[in-house]
Amino acid sequence: MTSTLSLGWLGTGRMGSAMARRLIDAGHPVTVWNRTRSKTDDLAAAGARVADTIHGLAAVDIVFIMVSTPKDLEQVVTGDGGLLSASTLPRIIVDCSSVSAEASAKVRQAVEAKGVGFLASPISGNPHVVAEGLSILMASGPKATYDTVRPYLDTIGKTSVWVGEAEQARVVKICHNLYLGMLVQSLSEVTALAEKSGVPRAAFLDFLNNTVLATDWVRKRTPDMLSLDWTPTFTTELLRKDFDLGLAIARQQEMPMPLGASVMQLIQNAIGRGHRDDDFLSLFQVQAESAGMEIKPQ
Amino acid sequence: MTSTLSLGWLGTGRMGSAMARRLIDAGHPVTVWNRTRSKTDDLAAAGARVADTIHGLAAVDIVFIMVSTPKDLEQVVTGDGGLLSASTLPRIIVDCSSVSAEASAKVRQAVEAKGVGFLASPISGNPHVVAEGLSILMASGPKATYDTVRPYLDTIGKTSVWVGEAEQARVVKICHNLYLGMLVQSLSEVTALAEKSGVPRAAFLDFLNNTVLATDWVRKRTPDMLSLDWTPTFTTELLRKDFDLGLAIARQQEMPMPLGASVMQLIQNAIGRGHRDDDFLSLFQVQAESAGMEIKPQ
Amino acid sequence: MTSTLSLGWLGTGRMGSAMARRLIDAGHPVTVWNRTRSKTDDLAAAGARVADTIHGLAAVDIVFIMVSTPKDLEQVVTGDGGLLSASTLPRIIVDCSSVSAEASAKVRQAVEAKGVGFLASPISGNPHVVAEGLSILMASGPKATYDTVRPYLDTIGKTSVWVGEAEQARVVKICHNLYLGMLVQSLSEVTALAEKSGVPRAAFLDFLNNTVLATDWVRKRTPDMLSLDWTPTFTTELLRKDFDLGLAIARQQEMPMPLGASVMQLIQNAIGRGHRDDDFLSLFQVQAESAGMEIKPQ
Amino acid sequence: MTSTLSLGWLGTGRMGSAMARRLIDAGHPVTVWNRTRSKTDDLAAAGARVADTIHGLAAVDIVFIMVSTPKDLEQVVTGDGGLLSASTLPRIIVDCSSVSAEASAKVRQAVEAKGVGFLASPISGNPHVVAEGLSILMASGPKATYDTVRPYLDTIGKTSVWVGEAEQARVVKICHNLYLGMLVQSLSEVTALAEKSGVPRAAFLDFLNNTVLATDWVRKRTPDMLSLDWTPTFTTELLRKDFDLGLAIARQQEMPMPLGASVMQLIQNAIGRGHRDDDFLSLFQVQAESAGMEIKPQ
Repeated sequence: MTSTLSLGWLGTGRMGSAMARRLIDAGHPVTVWNRTRSKTDDLAAAGARVADTIHGLAAVDIVFIMVSTPKDLEQVVTGDGGLLSASTLPRIIVDCSSVSAEASAKVRQAVEAKGVGFLASPISGNPHVVAEGLSILMASGPKATYDTVRPYLDTIGKTSVWVGEAEQARVVKICHNLYLGMLVQSLSEVTALAEKSGVPRAAFLDFLNNTVLATDWVRKRTPDMLSLDWTPTFTTELLRKDFDLGLAIARQQEMPMPLGASVMQLIQNAIGRGHRDDDFLSLFQVQAESAGMEIKPQ
Repeated sequence: MTSTLSLGWLGTGRMGSAMARRLIDAGHPVTVWNRTRSKTDDLAAAGARVADTIHGLAAVDIVFIMVSTPKDLEQVVTGDGGLLSASTLPRIIVDCSSVSAEASAKVRQAVEAKGVGFLASPISGNPHVVAEGLSILMASGPKATYDTVRPYLDTIGKTSVWVGEAEQARVVKICHNLYLGMLVQSLSEVTALAEKSGVPRAAFLDFLNNTVLATDWVRKRTPDMLSLDWTPTFTTELLRKDFDLGLAIARQQEMPMPLGASVMQLIQNAIGRGHRDDDFLSLFQVQAESAGMEIKPQ
Repeated sequence: MTSTLSLGWLGTGRMGSAMARRLIDAGHPVTVWNRTRSKTDDLAAAGARVADTIHGLAAVDIVFIMVSTPKDLEQVVTGDGGLLSASTLPRIIVDCSSVSAEASAKVRQAVEAKGVGFLASPISGNPHVVAEGLSILMASGPKATYDTVRPYLDTIGKTSVWVGEAEQARVVKICHNLYLGMLVQSLSEVTALAEKSGVPRAAFLDFLNNTVLATDWVRKRTPDMLSLDWTPTFTTELLRKDFDLGLAIARQQEMPMPLGASVMQLIQNAIGRGHRDDDFLSLFQVQAESAGMEIKPQ
Repeated sequence: MTSTLSLGWLGTGRMGSAMARRLIDAGHPVTVWNRTRSKTDDLAAAGARVADTIHGLAAVDIVFIMVSTPKDLEQVVTGDGGLLSASTLPRIIVDCSSVSAEASAKVRQAVEAKGVGFLASPISGNPHVVAEGLSILMASGPKATYDTVRPYLDTIGKTSVWVGEAEQARVVKICHNLYLGMLVQSLSEVTALAEKSGVPRAAFLDFLNNTVLATDWVRKRTPDMLSLDWTPTFTTELLRKDFDLGLAIARQQEMPMPLGASVMQLIQNAIGRGHRDDDFLSLFQVQAESAGMEIKPQ
């Protein structure tokens, strides 16, 4: 039974903590480790064991990783004192971080060379979404490995989707963010057009949020579009990073992206016009200004 | 009480019948008329009275209209034998047809000149959506007129949204369809990219349909994207018509539409490549072919 | 011999005067007429006869027309006191004004119905270019009519090109201006990129003006790009008018214009950002600002 | 006097030979070297001395280099047996190859560390253009170095333009090619539009080639556009390579390229539709097909 497997969690930042908490609250035994140990306190209070070193995770069945950068990932897996340098090794490593397919493939190779299973499993949403059990996990790696890990992924999020034998989950995550950027620019264009035509922004968004084109994302961000609050949830510059990755994949696959490439230029334009550190929803303001509109909070 | 108002329904094609039926089934007295009388049979069986001429609707409180073209609208309202030529007139005329703001304003002027209220109230969705009570109505015209009509609109659909004192509802309907076109092209680009990167189309769409970017529309069309079934629900040529209208509004409002205008060119490209009479979801196939992919039904 | 034909010139604004002057200076007998008679003084001094009314032109062999709008054109040809209302009629009418294909076709029909030949012959360039004998005339209409008029067209400009039996010359003129707009945006992008990369604007343009991609137009406008002088030679709003016409032709011909449509949105953006009445070369400034650059006159 | 300087030429492929020949024919003493010695025969017949090894060039004042790739450049300069490994060194090395700014900076550093001057000086045009003395050289590096080399550059081409102290000449070369790509797509759109509107392609291009927007490049390629001859002078794939480089520079400089990025997608589309190895002028055919046209050779 999967319930008898022991779990480890490496990386307890805001996102990692919210994810690990879902496993702990479901009754699974979880050992956690974080570079800054104090960030494990809340999880310890919720029932987690805290390891002193990364090697303290090495004896569990499945170690989940949630770190910030490809470099962090390499260090905690293949670096000095990393997971693979322990005398005993976990059965499976699941990386939930957002890294490129190239970085993922490199780590996978090192992990599998040691006879350990590897699953790439990035997640959609933010810590709030995770806490509410509404996030989704993409997963790629050997199907059998996914089958073993799946119950835990489906505990962390509301569901998981297996998308391939290799690094496809990384591609899916990037495609999701490309789609998000395109959707926000599309929304900005029609909302500005409606508003300039005399339809109050609130009325238009209220309408849109009731149609078959409604998304939870737009519903949730509607208050920010009304109040013109660009406090970052995700900055324009970070969105550009995902477009950098996405257009690089498209170039590699020889896939024309007429809208994707246009949105990239509009993101660049927003950065040039001062919205680098604003929430990327500020694309709406740039759109309105391009039509000579002076929009106001509603 | 609103429940004491008498209702008329002019135009009982597929869409009009589904809408009128919602009122009848809710217990309202409805008199119907249609040029081809046989198309009123089902409604009569459901309890509607059938008028012999348009004038037979003239004595009710509110007449709803659902016809195909601006020309039809003018004819049934201001033409020979039209509503305004009757000796008694309804209190309010509600037009649910999809016509341009210009055509709407022209009819409104004629109607209001006779002392009759006029509400523009186009609807989203198709007959199936209407029958399930899931459509949404936009409405524009004097707020007091909307307040009187609102209970009936909210019976026809799941809700209605008042968007302005004049022809704004027409603009909102067009903005909705512009957004739909942009969304479909965006979806096509990321789905083709994921597929060419090795993610099965079904897995990618399954994932997307579980995220905060999921829409009922994409969920519903997912089987068609998998089977590559371009049997038209709405042809590429009809979508182009809405983009013609939308870009004309944008031009009039001096609103740049970088993505909107690009999608228009991609629609034109799809028509040039033979998809004029296909469902506009065939944009996905054109996208895939632009990358040299040979996609197959799944 | 063509040299024995008598000529009339209707419309002696700046452009019309420069064109008529070329014929007079070449020794042709020319009768001129203009609504404001004083604008014919210079031509009279150069040897032209001045007619008191439009009918004073009616007895010549070929009447050239250069007026501002389609409405003016209709009035001087088919209106009260217009050319076609005279008792004798010219053999051929050549319209050099910039009007749409539709307006052109309408006038052609009226002219040919009277047994008079009609040639549409818009011209490229401005009065200075004309005076230097460097302009080009496009012509469309029956080939035989063109053959008769050709020597005069080739006297007005450095050459003329016959492009079809009907209104094609109007299309060619619009295509020329679409190409100009696309070229200016392209130039703006690469010049701003070079400048931000550390190449002085002057050096880059000097280079470009020496390559196989050099155009007389860019050479001539280089000083304005260096000094950032947007005193209008042709305003952004006027360029938009030509893009309106051009994209309408493209829509009618079902021709996707991916770059053309994008430039239209960028023109709209420039207008929204305050460059409506500036020279359309101000697209360069908008481009630079979109990258956060502060460009300076050189 | 500059005429007393001795010259070396490294790399006598088609382009290098045409360039070196210009110097020889002008009476300068030139020593040449090429990996495949037989490719120096024509130059030897024209008066060049042929060196047995790269070191045979090391004692001259100025060595010009024209090789194919960044790797070749590094090898002949800093590799075993390369220029910098000789006991005596030239005063100045001028690299005319087309390499990225990064590769150029790396070689410059190595060269200048040895006390040798370095000038980056890519050239526009092809061997035919060079032979006719119509090519242009961009140059970047210390101004004094340029001043020394300038007379030779102006002998090779019709002129040279100094564009900065570092690697700017590489950027200028890429900007030139971006501009070329944008111009060709713009030309394709208006030519196809004119043709579908009834203007013979030949007439339209004849007209355009006489206007202020005419370029030598379009004039020269007009026969190919008429005959639809896509025998490569420069393949679509090679143009894509320059757009890769150009968009990378733009990304680094944070410069939005709305048209540049769109053209990149259209190039990708042309590759996806089978024109990878065709001349990039085949963009015209793709444009025509996107409008459902069947174009024919004229």
